[in-house]
Amino acid sequence: MRQNITRIQLVMAEVQARIASRAYGPGFRLPSVRAQAQALEVSVSTVVEAYERLAAEGVIASRPGSGFFVAGPVAPLALAKMGPKLDRQVDPLWVSRQSLDAEAATLKPGCGWLPPSWMYEAGVRRALRTLARAESNVLADYATPLGHPGLRQFLSRRLAGNGIQAAPEQIMLTESGTQAIDLICRFLLEPGDTVLVDDPCYFNFHALLKAHRARVVGVPYTPHGPDLEKFEAALREHTPRLYITNSGIHNPTGAALSPAIAHRILKLADISNLVIVEDDIFSDFENTHAPRLAAFDGLARVVHISSFSKTISASVRCGYIATRADWLESLCDLKLATSFGGGQLAAEIILTALTDSGYRRHLENLKRHLTEAMTKTAAKLNALGIKPWLTPQAGMFLWCQLPEGLDAASVARFCLKEGVVLAPGNAFSQSLTASNFLRFNVAQSLDKRIFEVLARALRSP
Amino acid sequence: MRQNITRIQLVMAEVQARIASRAYGPGFRLPSVRAQAQALEVSVSTVVEAYERLAAEGVIASRPGSGFFVAGPVAPLALAKMGPKLDRQVDPLWVSRQSLDAEAATLKPGCGWLPPSWMYEAGVRRALRTLARAESNVLADYATPLGHPGLRQFLSRRLAGNGIQAAPEQIMLTESGTQAIDLICRFLLEPGDTVLVDDPCYFNFHALLKAHRARVVGVPYTPHGPDLEKFEAALREHTPRLYITNSGIHNPTGAALSPAIAHRILKLADISNLVIVEDDIFSDFENTHAPRLAAFDGLARVVHISSFSKTISASVRCGYIATRADWLESLCDLKLATSFGGGQLAAEIILTALTDSGYRRHLENLKRHLTEAMTKTAAKLNALGIKPWLTPQAGMFLWCQLPEGLDAASVARFCLKEGVVLAPGNAFSQSLTASNFLRFNVAQSLDKRIFEVLARALRSP
Repeated sequence: MRQNITRIQLVMAEVQARIASRAYGPGFRLPSVRAQAQALEVSVSTVVEAYERLAAEGVIASRPGSGFFVAGPVAPLALAKMGPKLDRQVDPLWVSRQSLDAEAATLKPGCGWLPPSWMYEAGVRRALRTLARAESNVLADYATPLGHPGLRQFLSRRLAGNGIQAAPEQIMLTESGTQAIDLICRFLLEPGDTVLVDDPCYFNFHALLKAHRARVVGVPYTPHGPDLEKFEAALREHTPRLYITNSGIHNPTGAALSPAIAHRILKLADISNLVIVEDDIFSDFENTHAPRLAAFDGLARVVHISSFSKTISASVRCGYIATRADWLESLCDLKLATSFGGGQLAAEIILTALTDSGYRRHLENLKRHLTEAMTKTAAKLNALGIKPWLTPQAGMFLWCQLPEGLDAASVARFCLKEGVVLAPGNAFSQSLTASNFLRFNVAQSLDKRIFEVLARALRSP
Repeated sequence: MRQNITRIQLVMAEVQARIASRAYGPGFRLPSVRAQAQALEVSVSTVVEAYERLAAEGVIASRPGSGFFVAGPVAPLALAKMGPKLDRQVDPLWVSRQSLDAEAATLKPGCGWLPPSWMYEAGVRRALRTLARAESNVLADYATPLGHPGLRQFLSRRLAGNGIQAAPEQIMLTESGTQAIDLICRFLLEPGDTVLVDDPCYFNFHALLKAHRARVVGVPYTPHGPDLEKFEAALREHTPRLYITNSGIHNPTGAALSPAIAHRILKLADISNLVIVEDDIFSDFENTHAPRLAAFDGLARVVHISSFSKTISASVRCGYIATRADWLESLCDLKLATSFGGGQLAAEIILTALTDSGYRRHLENLKRHLTEAMTKTAAKLNALGIKPWLTPQAGMFLWCQLPEGLDAASVARFCLKEGVVLAPGNAFSQSLTASNFLRFNVAQSLDKRIFEVLARALRSP
């Protein structure tokens, strides 16, 4: 039986390889079952089963009476294989889609953002009421190419407060932090270029880099930043074009970059002509300020990006890039070409919320709640034998190791059936070496049912 | 003094050109100030000033004691060459940037959208007031992967009214119509693939396809659709992967696709396995309904996209894709990977505006104003000897031919200096055969100063 499954898969792989190489072009009629069986030296029933599975996946289509055909054009860029969602548990997109698709009753400790009631809802409501009286160009017109000048000016001052010198002309607004990184990748990467990421890192970096057909190399992450020896070796061996990282609060570990490692990374980047994308999306959660690569480097080879989706609203889409003025011109062209820039509304809501006197208080409350939730969640996880890798200074994430011998993907699969979405470690790990880790979002871990389900998952064989 | 400034700029331009051509590669040590001054036959102080300005711009970096070095890597994907904006007049991005960047006093007959006061401002204001009382997930949370279910349901019914059968599960919301096309290109195109466009076509298609490194082939456009003979020849000769077009109201010509040509194109597409992207962004302007490729084809190989930026608001970013369910899964993965999906706010504003009882009245007023503006603008242009290529049944565009011997780019350059942004024909033409055409937006052509400046431009040598 086992032998038979392997043969079916071999036939499927063979057909898919020929479709990929366009040997079997779109609309091509596949060899008959009998001819294919002879050609590949397998049984007729093996080919029948392989063709039927390929048809079920939509790769080929059967036309009654005339055989099997290559279906439609071949989609070159399927980021994830289709299939039952339970089989996608370490796919970089799986955790996002589970979290985004979840019904209201679902518990989402694996989710990467705060519950909406933790966000700056009151500020957004006030901003909407104010905007209902705004001038018609704010309500109906496009923004200027770089985006809302008032928000860029505000961000320039705010970045200066974090030691990052970026004139408003060095800042471009985007629809999201993700779009910001996407534009930088479009600008700097050729298909096949190598990109360094932390291992583990935010799983959507993997999905995004897959979309750019980049070669991804992971560098083990320590509690104080990337492992410098491995980082240096990766530079030598792979001559990467980019390194994408979080410096402030690292996703998923909650670690923070130390000044010594930051300095060393920049020196290595200088020698190797590496561009660094610093994703600073969690900066507003910090209690003590960690160093920023962009501050040390003066935006020479560090591109700094962020958004407001973690503390104000994920519904109001707005992010930004701070970079060298000479790169911003091309990035702006790319933004216009691929999304025709942004509107003024989202930027105006964000600026109104950021400059609202209540925002500072909102952040203080939020940080206090997060600290409490962090302590509680860590205690409950410890009671189950699930150990945080470190105790983060701030933020929403706990990166935790399961008791020995347990597989996070299996635990996640078990919990999903019970309505609990987890984030299994290998979704974050390029080398797939985090199979016994889970990332917990402490703000999404307050319901005690999560730990009951987890306890059962840990006991299940 | 003036002379001196020019020399500094020449040195800067020279250095930048050498960096662009990689004669000075990344990390390259620039000639010493003295050597450069000799080589370029300028004074040492001129070179010092030029180097310092380039360093301030981040193009080069000084290392004390060892001179100036080319900073960072050379960016591979500059869609447009840098340089003074007046030299970019037939660049596909130029018209967009001029229009987006224009000051309030600038007149923009070349602009591709309506003045904000013509948009559905009242509906957006009402929607904002309603939304200020919405539930917190609408204000603060991400949307589901495909986007706001209520809006997708509404669009499904609306498309059915235009003969296009698309279930809500076949519709995905995007941030804009442009992002919709971009995602389809990401999904279907490999660098070097060929894409057919109309000649002339919406200039941003050129910019977008450049960003995808696609080979673009233009097919001459007739008043009833693409030239079928040339279309067929292009299919044979270039085996394109995609054809991107507008069926309802064509940009820039204002033409509409005839049923006979629509039918023929679909037959040719079937034989050649061509995917068609139908950009239906002007559908709400129509007085009589033109055929839609997506309606004939049943979304088998036609992907239908649109947005609300032309009639409701360009500030509220929201577009959509209607396509085969089996493609939507991959498109959705790509959307999450590259922009992490959308928020709920923009979709909720659009749905509220679309279902507001005032929207139908807004459209009727809008169409009446456009018809009036069309008649007036055509008369004023005719008086200057500028002849519309056809009289569109609806919409905002007049595609016009200049008196013989005049070059649209020169006219546009003249008018820009006078604060009037025009859209010169070759920005829309892959073959650059529209050098004596201009596209006029009749809603942006009501100020009589436009025609005074134009008259002077036509007389200028």
